[in-house]
Amino acid sequence: MPFIENTWYVAALASEVPASTALARRLLDRALVVFRDERGEPAVLDDRCPHRFAPLSRGQLAHGVITCRYHGLRFAADGRCVGNPHGDGRIPAGAHVRRYPSIERYGAIWFWPGEPARADAALLPDWPFLDPATSITRHGYLETAASYMLSAENLLDLSHFQFLHPYTLGSGEIAASAARTQGDGDHVHVTREIHHEKLQSFVADAFGIARGALATRRLDVHWQPPGLLTIDVAVAPEGAAADQARVARSAHWLTPRTPTSAHYFFAFGLPRTLGALGEKLVRFAISGLMLPFEREDLPMLAAQQEAMGSADFWSLNPALLPTDAGAVRARRIVERLVRAEQAQRRVPCQDAPACAARP
Amino acid sequence: MPFIENTWYVAALASEVPASTALARRLLDRALVVFRDERGEPAVLDDRCPHRFAPLSRGQLAHGVITCRYHGLRFAADGRCVGNPHGDGRIPAGAHVRRYPSIERYGAIWFWPGEPARADAALLPDWPFLDPATSITRHGYLETAASYMLSAENLLDLSHFQFLHPYTLGSGEIAASAARTQGDGDHVHVTREIHHEKLQSFVADAFGIARGALATRRLDVHWQPPGLLTIDVAVAPEGAAADQARVARSAHWLTPRTPTSAHYFFAFGLPRTLGALGEKLVRFAISGLMLPFEREDLPMLAAQQEAMGSADFWSLNPALLPTDAGAVRARRIVERLVRAEQAQRRVPCQDAPACAARP
Amino acid sequence: MPFIENTWYVAALASEVPASTALARRLLDRALVVFRDERGEPAVLDDRCPHRFAPLSRGQLAHGVITCRYHGLRFAADGRCVGNPHGDGRIPAGAHVRRYPSIERYGAIWFWPGEPARADAALLPDWPFLDPATSITRHGYLETAASYMLSAENLLDLSHFQFLHPYTLGSGEIAASAARTQGDGDHVHVTREIHHEKLQSFVADAFGIARGALATRRLDVHWQPPGLLTIDVAVAPEGAAADQARVARSAHWLTPRTPTSAHYFFAFGLPRTLGALGEKLVRFAISGLMLPFEREDLPMLAAQQEAMGSADFWSLNPALLPTDAGAVRARRIVERLVRAEQAQRRVPCQDAPACAARP
Repeated sequence: MPFIENTWYVAALASEVPASTALARRLLDRALVVFRDERGEPAVLDDRCPHRFAPLSRGQLAHGVITCRYHGLRFAADGRCVGNPHGDGRIPAGAHVRRYPSIERYGAIWFWPGEPARADAALLPDWPFLDPATSITRHGYLETAASYMLSAENLLDLSHFQFLHPYTLGSGEIAASAARTQGDGDHVHVTREIHHEKLQSFVADAFGIARGALATRRLDVHWQPPGLLTIDVAVAPEGAAADQARVARSAHWLTPRTPTSAHYFFAFGLPRTLGALGEKLVRFAISGLMLPFEREDLPMLAAQQEAMGSADFWSLNPALLPTDAGAVRARRIVERLVRAEQAQRRVPCQDAPACAARP
Repeated sequence: MPFIENTWYVAALASEVPASTALARRLLDRALVVFRDERGEPAVLDDRCPHRFAPLSRGQLAHGVITCRYHGLRFAADGRCVGNPHGDGRIPAGAHVRRYPSIERYGAIWFWPGEPARADAALLPDWPFLDPATSITRHGYLETAASYMLSAENLLDLSHFQFLHPYTLGSGEIAASAARTQGDGDHVHVTREIHHEKLQSFVADAFGIARGALATRRLDVHWQPPGLLTIDVAVAPEGAAADQARVARSAHWLTPRTPTSAHYFFAFGLPRTLGALGEKLVRFAISGLMLPFEREDLPMLAAQQEAMGSADFWSLNPALLPTDAGAVRARRIVERLVRAEQAQRRVPCQDAPACAARP
Repeated sequence: MPFIENTWYVAALASEVPASTALARRLLDRALVVFRDERGEPAVLDDRCPHRFAPLSRGQLAHGVITCRYHGLRFAADGRCVGNPHGDGRIPAGAHVRRYPSIERYGAIWFWPGEPARADAALLPDWPFLDPATSITRHGYLETAASYMLSAENLLDLSHFQFLHPYTLGSGEIAASAARTQGDGDHVHVTREIHHEKLQSFVADAFGIARGALATRRLDVHWQPPGLLTIDVAVAPEGAAADQARVARSAHWLTPRTPTSAHYFFAFGLPRTLGALGEKLVRFAISGLMLPFEREDLPMLAAQQEAMGSADFWSLNPALLPTDAGAVRARRIVERLVRAEQAQRRVPCQDAPACAARP
């Protein structure tokens, strides 16, 4: 399945791109380079010098300009060649690199792989709990050897906590609990409420529940295309009022690396007013989740992808459960959006550079 | 070349599949899982949960039932889904896994990749010297980076002992000795008798010949499809009557892993009446053969396969020797059986499940 | 792009092929074996026994005859089977290996992959400074993960010294210096003269220039198909007469390994009359160049090839600089020669063995 192009994807965490270093990264199966211009603004370019195709990410970055390591052509953050050290120094025709609209927000650098004219920062969803002005935030990153859709589906059906993460995130009460899936336009919302739950100590500690005590846990997963999720976990002592629940909010951003691998970015945020405790809790959340994510989710996703090979998901005739409702809805939305973009692409394009940039 | 499907292949040695652990194995280019049901009977299934394609071999096996590690669906040895922990627990339609007829015999687990209705234990050849009731047996296993046919041809022409195994199985007298190839239906029998042979010490010791003494060695190789061989090695001191020869009998079972790799199972057996000596001899045989098999045959087979690539054997115009008679006959039989299966498959199938299972 | 076939390529350095050992090497995407006959003359053969396709390079070489390790067939340096140890010893029909015309010269073993009848030692270019009778020579070898054309283009535009090798071969004065490209038939000659150059110490030391002193450096690159270059570097103290320059002459021979990898052989030579000093200088040159070649050129060439994938160079619309004139001219010559060979190949061939040998 092709990727949606006219949408924002995360290219990198902000912390992965210091002022002085260019980051080479495969995104939507393209070799791209992510770096910062002189003012610190992010830039996402094709990672290929137009002269002899050396990767620009191997070049030298200074004052927001990359000097190609091979023959010294210089490129600015907007992709234009701004220096030719050879002979009379004339800039050769065609010496520019495709530049993708990009924006830094929520501790991440976002880019728009589709038509530049359609890139609009207002289309980026809101994650107010990741606003650095008001929140303590912390981010994590993992590369997965599976399609970004498999990762999204993993998050849209958290009943797997019980089987894949029995000693960290899971418990014996999850699968039998009630889950509800709702849709709103291109958004999907899955809710699961687990009662009388004996939490594993990682979860109990994170939410301040006494070890061994019963609790009520509510999981709210919000998905929107292309692969952007928010997960709210609310935990209250058994019998307590719902408004006594402590809530952990996290964002989960999936970007295709290739058709069968993905970048998985995630982030936690808590109000600044929590001070040192909030700091401790977001650190605890990120480091605590790394273990099940890396040791349990990643191998399972890779095994799932390997079992599927390059086959289309539906061609394998999956036996679906009611708990797949959210994942199926999300997959259908992505498929519809991809089809719509492909149909549109068949119409002759008025905007020459954008057309030329179409893969 | 496709594989023969309506026949028995070894999936695993019995010892590779304890009661508590499922074995993931690629067989005939399919991802399969081998395990035991509650009574210890072997089961061979597609290694893919029908829900979201997680490998069942990563699941938990208890009382002959595999619980998928991802979302907890439970599958019995017959491939049926016998438990759904989610919601109301209804078993979803289509939640079954393809199951292959299987049988445990001669210290191995055999499976039938073709039409289940045609699977018949009576079609399994006899290896009476591997009957545990009357024999001391020992087994070995190696994975080879070459087609199972190349391995079979290696065994059908033991003249290679002289060149590939000069210090263990070979001698300078083998190639010049007389070999005779016979056929009987789909069976091939190659005999080679070597006189005045100076045995290498590994062979001399195994057969109780004084080091340095001359001997007569007779090699009898019996092959039948798909890749099942019996090799009898009879050694007598030079000049002794044929009935004074000591005989070592071994079975060699080849199962395609992929078109260019194979599983090689082998086994020795001696009468239980030999007691501790027999025990010692079969152990000596297996461990002694591992060295030339691993260090000499495997690299040569891999190099041969690499030189051939994915080309058809005949398209490379091999220059054949009289000693290739057995190997050529075996290859022609396999080719004929594959063609016959393919012709039959074109006829509309009456048996829906078997048809559906056709690749 | 296919390779030119009716031409000489280097198969190996002479020192890589001692009398007693056969060398397996992939050349022009063929598995070949390079060894020496009883008189020490080089032989280049298909590395595949015609019997069962075992690589002959794994066999035993004695007195210029290779005995196949698998079944003992023996092959002479002309590719004929000269011994069959089996049964009556008759040589089977078709038991010969394709042999390529070969010649040893300038410390290298050359072979001709095309029509044998057209192989003519007189077509080999002259490198008088590598004649062992009058010269002290030293050779180097590197395998590169890029097309041989990319390596040739690297050498045809030495302006990259400034950017890729800033601390060894480069300086800040190279790119801005004047380069001139000339052509003569299928030959390309690129000259670059750098004035007022502050040499890096490796170059200064090699040419006897005081560290820190200004110099004039002249680089002359001569290329001819398929990928044979001579590079003369002449360095004189700033202001000195041109005839006071010290000159280092080197040969650079590129042979395709696969379409996207190459063998890079290079050699330095100085007059024998220089004695121990010459000895020291050629050793200094080879070992000193290994560092920038291995650590800087090889990774860049590999990255360039990876960025290009299997795409045709022109299809990527390179933005060319005036400094690419030599590289472009060389690439056009190779393309024209390949097309000419392909056109000729469509004409029915009179010479059966040569035709059969056509890939």
